[in-house]
Amino acid sequence: MRVQISRVAMAAPPNIQTADALGPLIGRSGDWIRQRTGVDRRHISAVSMEQLGAEAARAAIGDGPPPDLLINASLTPLQLIPDSSVFLLGALGYSGIPAFSVHATCLSFAVALSQAAALIHAGLYRRILIVSAETGSLCRDFEEPESAALIGDGAGAALVEATPEGEDSALLAFRMATWPEGSDYAELRGLGTRNFPEAPHTRPADNRFHMRGPRLFRFTAQRFGPFLAELLGPLGLSPADIDLVVPHQASGPALDALPAFGFDPARVVNIIAEYGNCIAASLPMALAVAQAEGRLRRGDRVLLLGSGAGLSLAAALLRW
Amino acid sequence: MRVQISRVAMAAPPNIQTADALGPLIGRSGDWIRQRTGVDRRHISAVSMEQLGAEAARAAIGDGPPPDLLINASLTPLQLIPDSSVFLLGALGYSGIPAFSVHATCLSFAVALSQAAALIHAGLYRRILIVSAETGSLCRDFEEPESAALIGDGAGAALVEATPEGEDSALLAFRMATWPEGSDYAELRGLGTRNFPEAPHTRPADNRFHMRGPRLFRFTAQRFGPFLAELLGPLGLSPADIDLVVPHQASGPALDALPAFGFDPARVVNIIAEYGNCIAASLPMALAVAQAEGRLRRGDRVLLLGSGAGLSLAAALLRW
Repeated sequence: MRVQISRVAMAAPPNIQTADALGPLIGRSGDWIRQRTGVDRRHISAVSMEQLGAEAARAAIGDGPPPDLLINASLTPLQLIPDSSVFLLGALGYSGIPAFSVHATCLSFAVALSQAAALIHAGLYRRILIVSAETGSLCRDFEEPESAALIGDGAGAALVEATPEGEDSALLAFRMATWPEGSDYAELRGLGTRNFPEAPHTRPADNRFHMRGPRLFRFTAQRFGPFLAELLGPLGLSPADIDLVVPHQASGPALDALPAFGFDPARVVNIIAEYGNCIAASLPMALAVAQAEGRLRRGDRVLLLGSGAGLSLAAALLRW
Repeated sequence: MRVQISRVAMAAPPNIQTADALGPLIGRSGDWIRQRTGVDRRHISAVSMEQLGAEAARAAIGDGPPPDLLINASLTPLQLIPDSSVFLLGALGYSGIPAFSVHATCLSFAVALSQAAALIHAGLYRRILIVSAETGSLCRDFEEPESAALIGDGAGAALVEATPEGEDSALLAFRMATWPEGSDYAELRGLGTRNFPEAPHTRPADNRFHMRGPRLFRFTAQRFGPFLAELLGPLGLSPADIDLVVPHQASGPALDALPAFGFDPARVVNIIAEYGNCIAASLPMALAVAQAEGRLRRGDRVLLLGSGAGLSLAAALLRW
């Protein structure tokens, strides 16, 4: 599909919580946090997701025209109804533009990108704004140091448009798979009907992130190689042919495992030390950082990939 | 786009709550409920959304092959992480198929249909299962009789596929618009970061549906005529050219208002008396009822439309 990410931007809250500052809150040292999670600092938002998301979106739009569709691709909702896309639209001062939300936990941005590409290819829209804005720091469980040390707040936004004539940008391939037998490896069991806020069995811990790290890691690692082969194989490509890998920033160890699958470590975008795992916002934030560093070049093969609760894997191969 | 809804089915919980039974709980008579909302009975689910949704999905799939994508297009989540599509996948016994959720409140099914059409048109998928399953009865606020009297539980599922050769099915047009200035006309302010379960300011009422009915109705009615004209006008069609109107079952008065916009009342599918407003499931449930009644004929112009919290309008015109 001849589409491109024409603009990308991010927003990080100014308030920083270092590993050394977080350590005492979760009963671990700053060194333990850095070694186990790779996260040196995380940004903590003082504003709600629609404000943070609007900041990233405004930076992506710049002085360009408004989008004709807004897709909110965030995990953390502001409230259940209306869906958070409406509040993003309001914070941006838009009215009369369609808006909806996509939820695939950490993979929401990747899924939204595949949708945006298809919707533009079909002629339903021309300029789609995807916003991922996360304020998940509120849902950290300080009794579970490993997951609490991972999460940070942030937002990323991208504009998706048809590729202009004379350019070669394209979504070359997209693949996703979900294995529900891994559904309890990463959970937030509340904020739904199963553990409704007032239900007698609902506990505060249900409204917090929980992760079974080692199992999650093994489950993902087992499936990642074949998944990648099914994406790249039909195109006659191997990991060595990828110019830039932009992964979801799941954790330091997850990012460090990528070269074992054949990727050149120098071509993997890694922002975990500065921002932690910003859930769905990690992917567009990593794109924005790569762009600022001059690492996104038109014509290059750029691979967005990641794992998410479910357990799901997703990957989008772009000719940037 | 040459796509069609190849199969559609629904599931309604066996437990029925009549207007006369609900009346005393909300301080109104059965007659008041029937007159104000048009809802005579609503079904109340004893099982959670993934079980109800899987029942509808199994009926839609029948003895056909599995889908290659599952889109959960429901409002009420089972829990925040993983997203509810994963639990639907698990309840159906599938593994390795991609799954994600779309949230546009009552319009989730219509939005998912536009995505499914575009994704199939783009060649990314061939057989997409959309499931809308709602157990919103849990979120009724019995202190607010008008909205509490509207809500019912139910599920609908549809398979979307490329149109077989020799048939003419198509998505002829899709349109959506969102006006965030109407965001407080229909709300559930909890189950997100704004009114987090344990926050001191969060009240039980925040986890319930609230509606400013008359304002919502006026706001929608003002925008509905122009919206419809922008959908049908470019195709040279008027409401009189529609063979079957399948509306979101917002309320009896909302359904009764449709003929004022030029639709033949005999061609409007109305299931509100039996099921109430089943949020995102209302649209596929209405499709399933229309099919069972022999009202969905291949080649006919079928218009799916509705309003949702946001406030949003959406419409999909199909050549069935």
